[in-house]
Amino acid sequence: MGEDVAVTTLHDPESRGFASDNYAGAHPEVLAAIAAANGGHQVAYGEDVYTARLQEVMAGHFGDKARAFPVFNGTGANVLSLQSMLPRWGAVICVETAHINMDENGAPERIGGLKLLTVPAPDGKLTHELIDRQAWGFGDEHRAQPGVVSITQTTELGTAYTPGEIAALTTHAHDLGLTVHLDGARIANAAASLDLPLRAFTTDVGVDVVSFGGTKNGLLYGEAVVVLDPAASAGLPYLRKMDMQLTSKMRFVSAQLLALLDGDLWLRSAQHANAMATRLRAAVEGTEGLVITQPTQSNAVFAILPAGVADRLRTRFRFYDWNEATGEVRWMCAFDTTEADVDAFAAAIRHELIP
Amino acid sequence: MGEDVAVTTLHDPESRGFASDNYAGAHPEVLAAIAAANGGHQVAYGEDVYTARLQEVMAGHFGDKARAFPVFNGTGANVLSLQSMLPRWGAVICVETAHINMDENGAPERIGGLKLLTVPAPDGKLTHELIDRQAWGFGDEHRAQPGVVSITQTTELGTAYTPGEIAALTTHAHDLGLTVHLDGARIANAAASLDLPLRAFTTDVGVDVVSFGGTKNGLLYGEAVVVLDPAASAGLPYLRKMDMQLTSKMRFVSAQLLALLDGDLWLRSAQHANAMATRLRAAVEGTEGLVITQPTQSNAVFAILPAGVADRLRTRFRFYDWNEATGEVRWMCAFDTTEADVDAFAAAIRHELIP
Amino acid sequence: MGEDVAVTTLHDPESRGFASDNYAGAHPEVLAAIAAANGGHQVAYGEDVYTARLQEVMAGHFGDKARAFPVFNGTGANVLSLQSMLPRWGAVICVETAHINMDENGAPERIGGLKLLTVPAPDGKLTHELIDRQAWGFGDEHRAQPGVVSITQTTELGTAYTPGEIAALTTHAHDLGLTVHLDGARIANAAASLDLPLRAFTTDVGVDVVSFGGTKNGLLYGEAVVVLDPAASAGLPYLRKMDMQLTSKMRFVSAQLLALLDGDLWLRSAQHANAMATRLRAAVEGTEGLVITQPTQSNAVFAILPAGVADRLRTRFRFYDWNEATGEVRWMCAFDTTEADVDAFAAAIRHELIP
Amino acid sequence: MGEDVAVTTLHDPESRGFASDNYAGAHPEVLAAIAAANGGHQVAYGEDVYTARLQEVMAGHFGDKARAFPVFNGTGANVLSLQSMLPRWGAVICVETAHINMDENGAPERIGGLKLLTVPAPDGKLTHELIDRQAWGFGDEHRAQPGVVSITQTTELGTAYTPGEIAALTTHAHDLGLTVHLDGARIANAAASLDLPLRAFTTDVGVDVVSFGGTKNGLLYGEAVVVLDPAASAGLPYLRKMDMQLTSKMRFVSAQLLALLDGDLWLRSAQHANAMATRLRAAVEGTEGLVITQPTQSNAVFAILPAGVADRLRTRFRFYDWNEATGEVRWMCAFDTTEADVDAFAAAIRHELIP
Repeated sequence: MGEDVAVTTLHDPESRGFASDNYAGAHPEVLAAIAAANGGHQVAYGEDVYTARLQEVMAGHFGDKARAFPVFNGTGANVLSLQSMLPRWGAVICVETAHINMDENGAPERIGGLKLLTVPAPDGKLTHELIDRQAWGFGDEHRAQPGVVSITQTTELGTAYTPGEIAALTTHAHDLGLTVHLDGARIANAAASLDLPLRAFTTDVGVDVVSFGGTKNGLLYGEAVVVLDPAASAGLPYLRKMDMQLTSKMRFVSAQLLALLDGDLWLRSAQHANAMATRLRAAVEGTEGLVITQPTQSNAVFAILPAGVADRLRTRFRFYDWNEATGEVRWMCAFDTTEADVDAFAAAIRHELIP
Repeated sequence: MGEDVAVTTLHDPESRGFASDNYAGAHPEVLAAIAAANGGHQVAYGEDVYTARLQEVMAGHFGDKARAFPVFNGTGANVLSLQSMLPRWGAVICVETAHINMDENGAPERIGGLKLLTVPAPDGKLTHELIDRQAWGFGDEHRAQPGVVSITQTTELGTAYTPGEIAALTTHAHDLGLTVHLDGARIANAAASLDLPLRAFTTDVGVDVVSFGGTKNGLLYGEAVVVLDPAASAGLPYLRKMDMQLTSKMRFVSAQLLALLDGDLWLRSAQHANAMATRLRAAVEGTEGLVITQPTQSNAVFAILPAGVADRLRTRFRFYDWNEATGEVRWMCAFDTTEADVDAFAAAIRHELIP
Repeated sequence: MGEDVAVTTLHDPESRGFASDNYAGAHPEVLAAIAAANGGHQVAYGEDVYTARLQEVMAGHFGDKARAFPVFNGTGANVLSLQSMLPRWGAVICVETAHINMDENGAPERIGGLKLLTVPAPDGKLTHELIDRQAWGFGDEHRAQPGVVSITQTTELGTAYTPGEIAALTTHAHDLGLTVHLDGARIANAAASLDLPLRAFTTDVGVDVVSFGGTKNGLLYGEAVVVLDPAASAGLPYLRKMDMQLTSKMRFVSAQLLALLDGDLWLRSAQHANAMATRLRAAVEGTEGLVITQPTQSNAVFAILPAGVADRLRTRFRFYDWNEATGEVRWMCAFDTTEADVDAFAAAIRHELIP
Repeated sequence: MGEDVAVTTLHDPESRGFASDNYAGAHPEVLAAIAAANGGHQVAYGEDVYTARLQEVMAGHFGDKARAFPVFNGTGANVLSLQSMLPRWGAVICVETAHINMDENGAPERIGGLKLLTVPAPDGKLTHELIDRQAWGFGDEHRAQPGVVSITQTTELGTAYTPGEIAALTTHAHDLGLTVHLDGARIANAAASLDLPLRAFTTDVGVDVVSFGGTKNGLLYGEAVVVLDPAASAGLPYLRKMDMQLTSKMRFVSAQLLALLDGDLWLRSAQHANAMATRLRAAVEGTEGLVITQPTQSNAVFAILPAGVADRLRTRFRFYDWNEATGEVRWMCAFDTTEADVDAFAAAIRHELIP
């Protein structure tokens, strides 16, 4: 490495907020994994030894039939998963608040060529009854044909499905001839919250394809489509290239995913982020004027604040409005959130609320 | 960093071949830049200080109007560029061998919604006359409307357009009402080959939008759409998200691009790769039975070998067939190719050819 | 015409039901218009004299700036209109029950590349407040950008917007920077219901583009995109071809539309169909066990029947369920529905309901 | 029918040119068939008796497994056929001059999501060798996967494949795992030219799916996708709706197709148009200064004229340039072209050429 390295640190590496787990950087073990995979030449586009090893590690977590397809980002993982699960005329049943419906600028529809059939769900969770509100019109050429149920674990509202809840959904979906996709952008937080291995609420309860999230859990970049039931998905290698999600130097995505999964970093980081959210909630719950709006089952706390409070807090701590109409905000913890960060933020919240 | 890091080196970091510049890993200065940008929280999706700094650095290279949009990969940069330059009914004039036509599984057509109007070009270069073979039918609703000319620099055949050649193309294109895109997956190799600054064969000669390549020049991942003429492009932020090319932790793409461009790493690496190709050519040219098929103006050598020779060489050195029908092969050098690598390979080639 | 004509009448031309206005055939004046336009050669794809005349007639109805683009069917008119009004990243605000959302197998999303932002509306009508539930996130790259408000007149529930209601919507939409599309599959029924010229609830109140319906009002086939504000739409000729909605023998679509509009056939037919619906409602309203569920402002009556009654009626009269969950059915009248048809059907309904 | 019919004849029904077979109107027997199918209500969207009868008639022509899907136009039939034959990552091998490549504004790519892999073919015909120039890269994720061979019969250059030529193509395609589509916009002209039944050069020689053309052979509008091998196609009803090719009053498309096919109108009209082209060629061939450029195997004559001659002729007779660079023009005859039309045109051509 030359002594005249061009890039110097331009930001404050000790400043952290509560805006999003993707405001955090990368875990040091992840950078170490990249360094370990660097040097020399490796076959591009996935025929490298790190991607081969990743298959073994994913099979250890998700079962022998699991097959992982590393991609760049979560929207890519979702669109790719769903396209591979559906014919050109297929549709996806999901909740209105799903990331695929709210946050992807229509990529599932425009790029994936998919129709989303949405239902409102106050806690972000799909149910048997909610599926039935859209699972109809089979064989009617005027209706986009329902083919996949997509759920998010943990949900956009920070709640976690139990294995039983998921099993009920997948059984119902399969009975209807539908397959099941799980958007696992925060799948590690769900496992930490449920205190269960990854397969307990995926493979073992009938989920067919998972978007496995890495970025929000300490990677630089990188997710994976993990096919649990090969019969539920087709054409992934071609779709991945066509969808512009095929990285040439795949060894580096695979090495990062190995840093998470070939060991317990995935779980340590998620447990920590969840614990920080729990700590934050405990520190502010009950304060006059503050209403907690969702169960805290992962790394986010949702709350409603009196008018003006959020903006005053934001002069020092960054976080997002969730629902401007109701004044609901979201506070998100990450793998690198410290107890001191939480305590300072909680103190500031209480200070604003308690005269 | 914990002592029990999960990922260990699984490959031989001293093994290098001649298959592709994306078989290489990342330059150490690039990893150092990532480390420098790590830690703390930074706003996701591009509002970070590294992406802000990147705008200044890109403006230094490409002119004050230049604006960079970091993306994941080259196919993404190309599709995004072209979509932003064309209405829904637009078409792209390019050579048959263009990466967008040959190597992207139809992403420009299927994802971009673009029609490619191709012309054969033995040396990979478009000309005034070749453009005219497809620049017709304006106003005819049955014909996809030509709107963009796309060239590759250096070309897929390792040749480099001179500034004058590009100026002739852009003048002609602009006269026809078309804009000009430059696929710069190997743009640094072109600058090194021409011994000119980047703007000399882009901004200064009328190119409108560039796909700026980073991965093949020593990044882990990361390219950028660089808009040189803001009037030639619209909607990039929305298209980038919709096309699944928006990275949440953008600081890391920007930091890598800064590692290249805020200093001379981009040029040093490209010069080195080009020099290795020149060295390889010099070492084997004239050997009985070997025909060099293209000028060596960047980091690739194209040659035709007698039947069987390529396969025997490949037992020790990895490289690709370029045209199986003619026996043409491609030997590609990278930033990390050493003189010893070249000399060993050249010796092996000569050994196979000289009884 | 040869004496051995191949096609003979295979169906009962005196049998009519209440399923849909597209179960009806073509009005005899429409067939006469086709015959009048037949013979000789006319330039294909729209440069014929009938299409030229159609422009004049449409301008008479919709104002001097109006320009009509004949197409094949209503889904085509809608997708084409919306594509021409929006950039690639644009979205459409509409009610959940909109035809574009419910009945087009996702064509707006998949073919049009559009995102639909839907709101529930019990009477099928959009309002200022309902628009605001989706008109947000401008400039946010994660959100498909709201660009068009689409309303249906008459609505899928048979209700008609007043000019004032539409003016309120268009003013609000324009204030937000949005344009307004009107799906006029049954636009003639709306004019008849409101007793107003077509422009009174379109051009004069700020509608930008209309899907003008012909098929449901007695054509064999054929609709038109009518652009009222040329600034609100771009690229229609190209999009029409690309969307497979360009008929080669356009004179015959134009002649049919002239049969409707260059005279009062459009109004006569719609008035008659509306009157038949009103007659049907009057004949059954108040019958014990029957609940009328929507105002009857066009050619449809919506009602809830006791369990089993609909199926028994359907052994003699064809009509559709509207909502299987609630037992709501839809009875639709057409230009050729007779008073005797209505009276027989009403008698049958009463017979089933009154023991 | 009212006495005040709105539409009167605005054009000269005795004026005919040589521009295109779609400049002609509809055959009187076709109008009679529409009238016969009119009146009363018939189930929309294809469950009518005329569409049912069409299945029987198509089976008579194409074999018992044939199933017809009426659509609006030829571009629709082609895109729909190809989509139904290919997965999302599939590609089509065809000649450069194919209608799908040249005349459909990119609909196959943009709407169909298909990649076209084209080869030059001076006579418009694909061959075993030409297929092989694009039938490679199977399993390579960077390459759109060849899945269908599409041929046009008669070709865009007026030539007709023999059954043996087609059998050679389909055998080769099937051996490669590809299926075969035939764009039959002028399929009747091919049958007339070859003096063979339709199945002799389709079903019997291994063609899988046909776009059956009606409009150019005397319909107002209407074509059909005819699936010959059900295993080669999937999802047509859904795709037809999604692609905006589902007509509500399908009885009228089916009745027109019955007018052609349930009897010999299809053949009579095609034989006549072909005979008129042969008569035209015979009348002008050998005239000094005129070069016939293609065999006349259907209803078109291609010729090169001295500079200026075409424009002078066009002051009286409408026809198209085929290749402006070479001065090649196309003269197209239709079902309604008369001997007198041909003789007058031939005389004018000779008059221009012979001083």
